[in-house]
Amino acid sequence: MQVIPLGGLGEIGKNMTAVRQESGIVLIDAGMAFPDEEMPGIDLVLPDFTYLREHQDELRGIVLTHGHEDHVGALPYLLREFNVPVYGTRLTLGLVRPKLAEFGIKKADLREVKAGGNTKLAGFDLEFINVNHSIPDAVAIALRTNAGTIVFSGDYKIDLTPIEGEPMDLGRYAALGEEGVLAYFGDSTNSERPGYVPSERIVQETFNEVFEKTEGRIIVASFASHIHRVSQVVEAAKAHGRLVGVTGRSMIRNVQIARELGYLDLPQSMYVDQRDVNRVPDGDIVILTTGSQGEPMAALSRIAAGTHRTIEAGPGDVVVVSAHPIPGNERGVSRTINNLMKRGAEVLYTPLRAVHVSGHAAQEEQKLVLSLLKPKFLVPVHGEFRMLKHHANTALTLGIQEENIFLLENGDRLEFRNGEARKIEPVQAGMFLVDAGSVADTSESIMRERQQLSEEGMFIVVARINAQSGELLGPPDVISRGFVDPQAQNGLVDESISIVTKTLQRTASRNVTDWSELKKAIRKDLSGFLSQKTRKRPIILPLIVEV
Amino acid sequence: MQVIPLGGLGEIGKNMTAVRQESGIVLIDAGMAFPDEEMPGIDLVLPDFTYLREHQDELRGIVLTHGHEDHVGALPYLLREFNVPVYGTRLTLGLVRPKLAEFGIKKADLREVKAGGNTKLAGFDLEFINVNHSIPDAVAIALRTNAGTIVFSGDYKIDLTPIEGEPMDLGRYAALGEEGVLAYFGDSTNSERPGYVPSERIVQETFNEVFEKTEGRIIVASFASHIHRVSQVVEAAKAHGRLVGVTGRSMIRNVQIARELGYLDLPQSMYVDQRDVNRVPDGDIVILTTGSQGEPMAALSRIAAGTHRTIEAGPGDVVVVSAHPIPGNERGVSRTINNLMKRGAEVLYTPLRAVHVSGHAAQEEQKLVLSLLKPKFLVPVHGEFRMLKHHANTALTLGIQEENIFLLENGDRLEFRNGEARKIEPVQAGMFLVDAGSVADTSESIMRERQQLSEEGMFIVVARINAQSGELLGPPDVISRGFVDPQAQNGLVDESISIVTKTLQRTASRNVTDWSELKKAIRKDLSGFLSQKTRKRPIILPLIVEV
Repeated sequence: MQVIPLGGLGEIGKNMTAVRQESGIVLIDAGMAFPDEEMPGIDLVLPDFTYLREHQDELRGIVLTHGHEDHVGALPYLLREFNVPVYGTRLTLGLVRPKLAEFGIKKADLREVKAGGNTKLAGFDLEFINVNHSIPDAVAIALRTNAGTIVFSGDYKIDLTPIEGEPMDLGRYAALGEEGVLAYFGDSTNSERPGYVPSERIVQETFNEVFEKTEGRIIVASFASHIHRVSQVVEAAKAHGRLVGVTGRSMIRNVQIARELGYLDLPQSMYVDQRDVNRVPDGDIVILTTGSQGEPMAALSRIAAGTHRTIEAGPGDVVVVSAHPIPGNERGVSRTINNLMKRGAEVLYTPLRAVHVSGHAAQEEQKLVLSLLKPKFLVPVHGEFRMLKHHANTALTLGIQEENIFLLENGDRLEFRNGEARKIEPVQAGMFLVDAGSVADTSESIMRERQQLSEEGMFIVVARINAQSGELLGPPDVISRGFVDPQAQNGLVDESISIVTKTLQRTASRNVTDWSELKKAIRKDLSGFLSQKTRKRPIILPLIVEV
Repeated sequence: MQVIPLGGLGEIGKNMTAVRQESGIVLIDAGMAFPDEEMPGIDLVLPDFTYLREHQDELRGIVLTHGHEDHVGALPYLLREFNVPVYGTRLTLGLVRPKLAEFGIKKADLREVKAGGNTKLAGFDLEFINVNHSIPDAVAIALRTNAGTIVFSGDYKIDLTPIEGEPMDLGRYAALGEEGVLAYFGDSTNSERPGYVPSERIVQETFNEVFEKTEGRIIVASFASHIHRVSQVVEAAKAHGRLVGVTGRSMIRNVQIARELGYLDLPQSMYVDQRDVNRVPDGDIVILTTGSQGEPMAALSRIAAGTHRTIEAGPGDVVVVSAHPIPGNERGVSRTINNLMKRGAEVLYTPLRAVHVSGHAAQEEQKLVLSLLKPKFLVPVHGEFRMLKHHANTALTLGIQEENIFLLENGDRLEFRNGEARKIEPVQAGMFLVDAGSVADTSESIMRERQQLSEEGMFIVVARINAQSGELLGPPDVISRGFVDPQAQNGLVDESISIVTKTLQRTASRNVTDWSELKKAIRKDLSGFLSQKTRKRPIILPLIVEV
């Protein structure tokens, strides 16, 4: 039996792991990631599917732990290539369904499972175990393989007073631990954080306080998938006699799905379409919105910028940013908060106010889980290396042997045989950049070009030359984009023209007519001049037109 | 008397404020800011000097509060235009001097002042008051103007057990308060933080612990200007018998300046040049380095990536990242930490370990200062709007009248007359983007081009046409950079060529020979096709070559 993480190790996002034995491959989760600042113009990042393509005939199914994008976002792309059954809980599949429809995937084989339930797949016995997380219906997965039992935590925390459903099923973990767990693949997102993560319920206190004292509008921004948070807002609205407006595409959609599937008790009489928000007095409505990460086009950012079609915020209103900024989003979130405050609204955000709790287990929770499961081997998953490493350090304090903890990278293969584990030669894994909905990969060379274009700009030379003699016909043209302002730079244009002219005179006198030689010479002479003159290194594109 | 903030309001950085009365203008600080993610390729950001140019004959001098870049970084650019005296404390001028030399400014009129000292300038009486900050020799400035006394806090915290020098001179603040303070311009950087910021001295405990238990190398990254932090490392090295290696251009320079001016007691016998680091056994050296913000080219990032010329870090070594990430730098810092951990080094960083304290006053310190100064008017400065606003909120709790608190923007003018203050029409203020050391401003249009190039790329069409008839001579060429891979997109190249061909046939049949008309037609037809086919909107550059 082999376990092959294809995403989610050494990074946040695109979680996907293959479990393989003679009877076939089962994939745990199929997540996407968001691009970082080194991927300009990229919409989303997928795991590399190469390994799956190479073992297409072995792939028997995909098992989802919960409905977040970093665990299900790659599913439409996967199903386009591989027609295999997908297992997930009711809400997870409910969130997946409209996405598949968007992609035109009509006959996906979606199979609903329940926490506490079991199923067989590709010779594995699968068990689904209830966990708490910032989305309902999240499960951990225990797989009985021919090498022993392995447990995937999914994303989890231990919430003993959850907003909905049951506390994490620690009893099953204890029972599995008694039976014997070969290996545990555990969520490491919060493994740098000591102690316990508080219950989701503590946010309720802040909400109640806000609803009690606010006379104007209340606007709450959270992740659209955070149905528990949404549910707490709805309950506060009920208690304080406010209606609930909803704005932001994904918030509208998720609220609808959660209502339809019974995860959110929001009667139609309380629901206000975003177009009708202004018909309700400010003191009688709370508005749920997207944009808690400061995304420029999200509803909250538009409210903050004063460009939302129907919703405004101002003096007397209270805006609750009910989320932590994901690393990289700090500036966008800060801009939104500044803009809202400039409009006169009061803004509540972490860490100043208790308006958010994390959905990922901290160190004491990780210790509890490890103590119950007593796995022989630990593989920290979901996280940057620093997080995986801290998870490992926590395990060491519980007496797990260092040689039994594996800090893996995407593509590493861990082989289990006779109760032992070892790393064998890795498979291809990495990133697949999705650009503007294109299916084609955006290559690294294009990423490098975009980076250089954005920082240095482009400098184009058009030279008309005689096809026979290679002689220059008239002075070349130079055009730049994203470079320095050529007019502001004394003589830059004229000198560039004169340099290219000299270069081509020199090459013509040597009878060089090979275009690539000419271009190379132009690039060389110009780049030296431009970088000395402007200290910038634009992409130089010589265009030679034969006449 | 007028006070005109020209930078530092609604932002972090480029602090600069003009104080103007009939007798002339005094400028408080001349700082720069770092570019954000919307300014690709930009090296640094300066305040707009337009107002100063327009009032050049009134400008009498520049007064510096301390030597950080966000308070002195614009000085070379200012002195290039305005030859006025510069007042600052010894270390501040010591840090400024080599920068001016770099810019070829040889005869700046630098006038040394002392905390506790006074001077007259342009009809103002200036007093310099000792404050604590993350750099030695920082001062607040009290100006006696013809409208009353105004106080500029500079950057400050209250450290009752400073590493060097005296605690902030609260006695002078009390005395000024008794005399009567018209207006206080107070540092707002940390005004969202409750309580007091701890003394710099608490970092010492962590350092001592690290030095006691570590057997390998110790590497400490901090801001190069944080002489107190550097000093604590040196003292720990003395106590534990380690030599001190130094790497990173600005760290080497600042350590040298601080030693020369007597702010750092590091004997030559303990100093190890970075080239000689490997001659010292790992357990006998601590290395000071730049790179605490994860800057890709800084020494620590290179150590982490394994590309530093002489210094490596690995198992047994401890790296202390002795700074908080500035918003926007989180990912870079995280990458550095991950890389160092992958090499096997132990890495200590905030908030997990007490390896850094802030240099900016928190709410209780702000309250203490306001209580002592008892200013009639408060203008929160240094910070984004959310920080200014929180500073204002804190002042409200002390009973300062809301109408006496001014939340200003850069360029706003506050006029003081007969003990009253009012906002009058603003002056031009904003950003001046410095690109690769160029003096010329980089215009907004170039920023927009760079943004579009980085996200969408560029698509170039070269068409040869008959100069007389406007007819196309052969199929046009298409070239792209930073766009999608044209080969991967079925038929994209051929279809583009065919579209441009049709466009030019159409225009030729209508006898259009005006180039700008031709280009417009090409752009229109192509952009529709490309965005429909790829969902991207590259910059389209049609080049028409007449033959």
